[in-house]
Amino acid sequence: MNQKTDPMSLALAQAHAAAARGEVPIGAVLVKDGAVISVAGNRTRELNDPTAHAEILVIREACQILADERLTGCDLFVTLEPCTMCAAAVSFARIRRLYYGAQDIKGGGVENGARFFTQPTCHHAPEVYSGFGEAESEALLKEFFKAKRL
Amino acid sequence: MNQKTDPMSLALAQAHAAAARGEVPIGAVLVKDGAVISVAGNRTRELNDPTAHAEILVIREACQILADERLTGCDLFVTLEPCTMCAAAVSFARIRRLYYGAQDIKGGGVENGARFFTQPTCHHAPEVYSGFGEAESEALLKEFFKAKRL
Repeated sequence: MNQKTDPMSLALAQAHAAAARGEVPIGAVLVKDGAVISVAGNRTRELNDPTAHAEILVIREACQILADERLTGCDLFVTLEPCTMCAAAVSFARIRRLYYGAQDIKGGGVENGARFFTQPTCHHAPEVYSGFGEAESEALLKEFFKAKRL
Repeated sequence: MNQKTDPMSLALAQAHAAAARGEVPIGAVLVKDGAVISVAGNRTRELNDPTAHAEILVIREACQILADERLTGCDLFVTLEPCTMCAAAVSFARIRRLYYGAQDIKGGGVENGARFFTQPTCHHAPEVYSGFGEAESEALLKEFFKAKRL
């Protein structure tokens, strides 16, 4: 056994689990004071919910657990660059730090497209760190979309 | 009795109800084939959920009711210009037409800030119509924030 328990490895495990459910393989983990508060993979198909991205699910669950609509001092780990919807949700939730894996040229909203955190309509921006677990995240997504095209 | 049943009047009624609950007074209504599918006002405080904007709530409920993660052919009525998070959710849900009241210079994501529907990372844009019920929507928001500052 070589189970990795760092947050990005847990997020990648959630991405693998999402792929196994037929969902786009993206995973997220929400951490506060070194403790994992919530973990999720995409569930848009299973839940019939276009907003059920991994990031939204961990944010909503953490808010329930902490009984607060603001996740001040919390950090989010996600395997792919968040889309614009999720970037805005990260801002509304007042998340402190955002760590993500691969960048998403087609759908990302942090370093691509809307670059939400740089907009004048963004009133809280987290610290952003990228490139963590990038290779594994990208490989997982490529494999998933290749299999879908077969 | 002079109850208005057009969708924007129903959305404004939801905004009034949100104000009465101490929530930011914004309301939304989701319509398909002339029938109201779901109505909601903001519930971020009540639900401890920073994603519980009126638009997200009507989208999520309509998806449950229609058992589909895409709201093809559905139209969204909302009293204020959607924020960037909600604009992206409207796009993901494949909503056909978006009607809104007042524009939101500080937080909007349609004609302000990220202007999400014009981004290369936006893969479905609804038809957009604005200015419906604008005066009532603006008055309601001004009154709410004025009362908060007292």
